[in-house]
Formats: sequence, structure tokens, C-alpha cells
Amino acid sequence: MTEVVIAGLGQTEVGEHWSIGLRELAFMAIQSAIKDSGGLKPQALYVGNMLAPNLSNQAHLGVLLADYAGLTGIEAATVEAAGASGGAALRQGYLAVASGMVDVALVAGVEKFTDQVGPGVEEAVLTTSDSDFEAIQGITPTAQAALLMKRYMHEYQVPQNGFAGFALTAHANGAGNKFAMFQKAIKPETYAKAEMISDPLNMFDMAPNADGAAALVLTRRELLPPNGQNPLVRIIGSATSSDTLALHDRKDPLYFEAAQISAGKAMKQAGLMLDQINLFEYHDMYSIYAALSLEAVGFAIKGHGWKLAADESIARNGKIPCATMGGLKARGFPGGATGVYQAVEAAIQLRGQAGANQIVHAKIALIQSLGGPASTAVSHILTNEI
Amino acid sequence: MTEVVIAGLGQTEVGEHWSIGLRELAFMAIQSAIKDSGGLKPQALYVGNMLAPNLSNQAHLGVLLADYAGLTGIEAATVEAAGASGGAALRQGYLAVASGMVDVALVAGVEKFTDQVGPGVEEAVLTTSDSDFEAIQGITPTAQAALLMKRYMHEYQVPQNGFAGFALTAHANGAGNKFAMFQKAIKPETYAKAEMISDPLNMFDMAPNADGAAALVLTRRELLPPNGQNPLVRIIGSATSSDTLALHDRKDPLYFEAAQISAGKAMKQAGLMLDQINLFEYHDMYSIYAALSLEAVGFAIKGHGWKLAADESIARNGKIPCATMGGLKARGFPGGATGVYQAVEAAIQLRGQAGANQIVHAKIALIQSLGGPASTAVSHILTNEI
Repeated sequence: MTEVVIAGLGQTEVGEHWSIGLRELAFMAIQSAIKDSGGLKPQALYVGNMLAPNLSNQAHLGVLLADYAGLTGIEAATVEAAGASGGAALRQGYLAVASGMVDVALVAGVEKFTDQVGPGVEEAVLTTSDSDFEAIQGITPTAQAALLMKRYMHEYQVPQNGFAGFALTAHANGAGNKFAMFQKAIKPETYAKAEMISDPLNMFDMAPNADGAAALVLTRRELLPPNGQNPLVRIIGSATSSDTLALHDRKDPLYFEAAQISAGKAMKQAGLMLDQINLFEYHDMYSIYAALSLEAVGFAIKGHGWKLAADESIARNGKIPCATMGGLKARGFPGGATGVYQAVEAAIQLRGQAGANQIVHAKIALIQSLGGPASTAVSHILTNEI
Repeated sequence: MTEVVIAGLGQTEVGEHWSIGLRELAFMAIQSAIKDSGGLKPQALYVGNMLAPNLSNQAHLGVLLADYAGLTGIEAATVEAAGASGGAALRQGYLAVASGMVDVALVAGVEKFTDQVGPGVEEAVLTTSDSDFEAIQGITPTAQAALLMKRYMHEYQVPQNGFAGFALTAHANGAGNKFAMFQKAIKPETYAKAEMISDPLNMFDMAPNADGAAALVLTRRELLPPNGQNPLVRIIGSATSSDTLALHDRKDPLYFEAAQISAGKAMKQAGLMLDQINLFEYHDMYSIYAALSLEAVGFAIKGHGWKLAADESIARNGKIPCATMGGLKARGFPGGATGVYQAVEAAIQLRGQAGANQIVHAKIALIQSLGGPASTAVSHILTNEI
């Protein structure tokens, strides 16, 4: 089997970049990643983006970004799968390199929420749910997540503030990540006093929309430059699965089946058992998503996912460290760039370059990018084992 | 090298489907393709779509369509590269199957121009050009194509009505394709009298926006069902190239460099010379695009592309038959579905199922899907040779 490796990585700070445009933001990440790879020459660019056609009136991003980055001539396309666009772009890059048809692929995720030359953010985000059957009724992803959280709390007798641990962990880790949107730890009382957004979901139960770009250079192991300066990071598992687009079409809305299936397939490909995974970058768009993802992947049985946050199992020195660089909650949610950020962060951990946030002896990382309530789930497994 | 084959194909009529929604349209093509494959079970769906986030307020099409087609659980994502979205989705399907990671991939192109629940068509189409530097100035793709055509006519002393042959050929071929939007041949005087859209570009120099969906089932040769009913069609070349997004950034706007490079790479992969190609499905969004594509690929020297239409070299019994089922001009331009239609039509020719439009002894077909003025160019080569 071909060995696909991460040869280079780059990221911009996540936040509100009012003075930097979409293409400039992407370019910064692409430039960093190419430099970090020791100057490998990409033959293809797969862009993960979620909302630029609406927010920035800009489609055809593949060529726009290749052109702006001085890479005119290379293969270029955009991959979209709502919030999982970054994961889906990584998946396409992986397949291209694994096929042997592309030697060096760039995967770049970019999102610019502060553009808004088109319709507003809420309206744009609604295009990722079922437009004819959900959006038209006025149910937003956040309102839906609140209903899901309420049902979960009822079903499993979760106490008030039972989800606090997700935000506490994310912010504790964001404090050590200079690219994170929020670099400040929060206290339990901050969570407890937070403004209610959609009962029972408060301001700390959801990730902030943000601008950002991240990029990866993928290649096959044998094409790595000799004397490369970066520790080896291989992609040993890759899988995408889907569920119904609308939550109301599922038998059990509290079961993220696509998250389970895609993680299972990726682990099978890698030949791994769950207890070999040293860190998990989940898609904590909402704290309830984090809880359900932990259960879907198998780190907790049904109804117990929230306890892993409550008892600090997901902390850096816990049983299964999660959101190790802040996750969506504290690093921020730069839309279609998010899945690429996850890969960049996991690779930094596996290289041993995570500084204060370093997970000791980290060898295997699982990252999972979700679109909607796990309507799309893209899972990748990375390792530093030779 | 892995042999990727087209195991099944399907298409809907191209036209104004006021009473059929985006998902229903895609489903019709997907269902036909799966049936035509003898019931192969797809593991992945790559959707080629250009404008649904704007025209239909609907992103996240991969899951939407997989879900609606009863394929919940499979891998799904959307691939976008403006007018080349269909070609780019085919390219992704090809890479996925070639990689060995996906055994059976569905490639579905779909576009619904008549939806327009979002902004108007002109505004939506403008998102595929450079929003900050072209769209904002009010230059539309059609106005730009007219300028390009004017320059070409001046540069190469093309007589009035010199481009007529492109429309005449397309409509002559559309007459034999029951899926085409226009199934009626036109006369030279019809072209000569046509309404001017943007001087010198008249109504017959541009393809009509249309609704439509087309689908392919791809697999590896060894996975074809025994006793399959369809003649073998293999994909033996696949390549994407890009140019500057904006025409004004090119040294020579009359040279479609990406079209040249992607066709050249695909031919190199297939080990073919130009004179071995029996038919060419070009991206005749505008007649000037057709002329420039013929030159870029090498069927004519610079400035002579229009002559291949004028002297009927591109007719069904000509030297290099083009637009054999009507092309974009007569079959119609269903946005991101277009590149998939080209593959469906070329495969029908290579199977010998093209009826009145059959190209005799067709063995090798080149198809090329363009985004913008060849800002993206995706080329594939298909063959029926065993």
C-alpha cells in the first residue's frame, strides 16, 4: 500500500480578519505549508471551503487560490461537504496521492465569515442543512443542537452544567495555542453564568464562526526530500461516511452513525484498536456534538460521553485527550478550513512541536470532521510511527 | 496500472424542468446509471455542481443526494470548479477508484438553473469569475466571450458568420439526441439572422443554461460483473490543469493554455497521438471557446480553429467529429452536470449505442470540461479497445 505522508503544514491565526481577504488568508497558509515542506512543488490543490459562494460571492476557488499563490497550471478544485469540507478536501488529497496520479498535493482549507458581501451568515449556514425541509421551517443548526442536547440531558439524566467540561478543556488548551481565537482558560463559574443561546445550550456550548486558513502538503513517503527537517507523519487511515442530511429522518437522533462508521473504517484500514489512539480531535461545533462523537467512536458507551468531559478524561493528561489545541470551541470554527486545522494540529502533536500543549508519547491521532449533525463524517488517522 | 471503467451511465433530458427539483433530477440520473451498471453498489458519490448554493440555497449536496437516492452511509462530497465541476467530479471519482480505496464510485452532475430561490442567474454565474476584480466591474462571461471573439476575428481575418459551423454542427447532432434541449437542425440563414447578444456574439454563438443531471458508475475492470450487458469503456487518460482565473491576467487571451496542458497530459498517460482520437467533446459554451479548444488541443494551428467548423471537419463524418450529441450548444449547458454529460455521451458513442449519431468505428474519445475561459480544464480519454 502506498504511504501518504504530511510533508508540510501551515495555518493562520483564527479570528476576525477584517483586513485580510479570502485569497490572502489562504495564501498565507499555503505559503507556510510549502515552506515547511522544504519547497516541494505541488501538482494539485484541493480547497476545502463551505460558504464562499454565498458569503464572498466567490466560487471557483481552486483556480482563484492556485493563481494567487503563483501555482498557475496545477490541478485545482474545491471540495464541499458543509462543516466537513476541510476533512473532505484532505480525503481527496489523500486519494489523489494514494492513486499514484498526483505526487504532491496541496490541501487548503479557508473560510471568511467576516466577508458577508452576500447574504448574512445565518442564511448562508442554512444552505448546508436541507433547504426544502429544514431551512424553510426556520430551524437553525444551533436551535437543532439545543433540542438534541435537551433530549440527551433528559434521556441520560445529565445534571445542569454537565457539559461544562467540554468548554473548560477546550479553553484550557486554547491558552497554549498561539493560532487559537480564544487563548484564555475559563472557570466553571464562567460556564455556569454564560448567556443562554437556545436553552439548554449556552454561549460556551457552541463554537464561534471565524476566519482562518490552514494547509497541508501531502506526498508519498518515497518522494520526501532527503534530510527533511520534519519528523515523519503518515496518514494510515482515511474514510468518509454519510447519514441522512436531516436529523428528523433518523431513527435515533442521539446516535452519530456516520461518525461511528467512518472512524471504524479508518481504524480498520490502519489495523488499530481504539485503545491505541492517543488523541482525538473531534468536531465540537456544539458540546453535544463532542459528547455524541465520543460515544459514536467508542470512547464511551451511549449516554456516557459527557462524563469523559466531567471527569477530565479528555484533558491533556487524561485517558483520551481531545481538542488538544483548543478544538472548535477555543481555536474557533473557520468553516471549511476546520478539518484541515485538525490535521495540522494533530500533525504538530505527532511531530512533538505542540509546546505547552504537547501530549506526551503521542503516537496515533484520530481526527474527525463533521458536516451538519454528522450528516457527513470524515475520519483520518495519523501516526508518527516509522 | 489500475484500469478504471465506466460500468453504468444515466442522464435526464436537458431543458427547463420547472416541475422537478434538484434532488429528484439527480436521482433520476443516479437510478439510471446504477440500473445500467447491472446493480453495482456504490461506496462513494462525487457530485459535480456549480451553483446550487446560490440558485437553490442548497449546499451539502453530497449527503442530500446520497440520502435521497437511498444510499445513506456511503462516502459523499461535492466537487466544484465552475463550468468544469462535472469534469472535476469525474476526475475525483477516477482518482478514488484508481487509488484502490473505493471499489465503486458514483459520479453525478446536476444543475437546476430554473430554481432561482436565491439571487438571479447572472449574479450567481458571476461568482465563478474573479469576484473582486471582474464581477465587480460588471463584466459577464458572455460579454467577455464577445470581446474574445472580436479580437480573434480581427486577428485572423475571420469573415462574418465565420463561426456559423459550430452551431450548425451542434444542432444537426442535437436532432439525433432525445436528451438534447434542442433537437432541431438549423440552417445557415438562421444563424445569419440570429439576434445579436453582445456583438459579434449572437444567440447561436452561446449555449443555453439548462436543468439536467447525468451520472456514471465507475469501477475497476476486474470488479465488473461477469456477463455484463454493456460493451467495455475504459478511462485511459485523466488530467486537470488551471490558468489564471481572470482573462486579463494572461499574456495571450487567445490561447487556452490549460486546455492544451490537460489534454496533453491525458494523451501522454494514454500513450496516444492526436490523430488516434476519433471524437472530441469540447466545451462549446461559446463558439469562440470551441475554436480556441480545437487549437489548444492541437487539431488546428492558431487562428485556424474556426475553419474546422466552416469546412465541416467537425461534422459526424468529418476529420474530427465534435459535439456529437449536440454539445453544449444544442444538448444544452446544465452547469456542473455538463462534464458528466460529455462522459455519458462519449461512452454511448464508444458502446455503439448512439443511433443516428453514431460515429462509425469510434475507438477513442477525448472529452474536455472547462471552467470559465479555460481557467480550469479537465480532460479525459475514453476507449472501447479491449
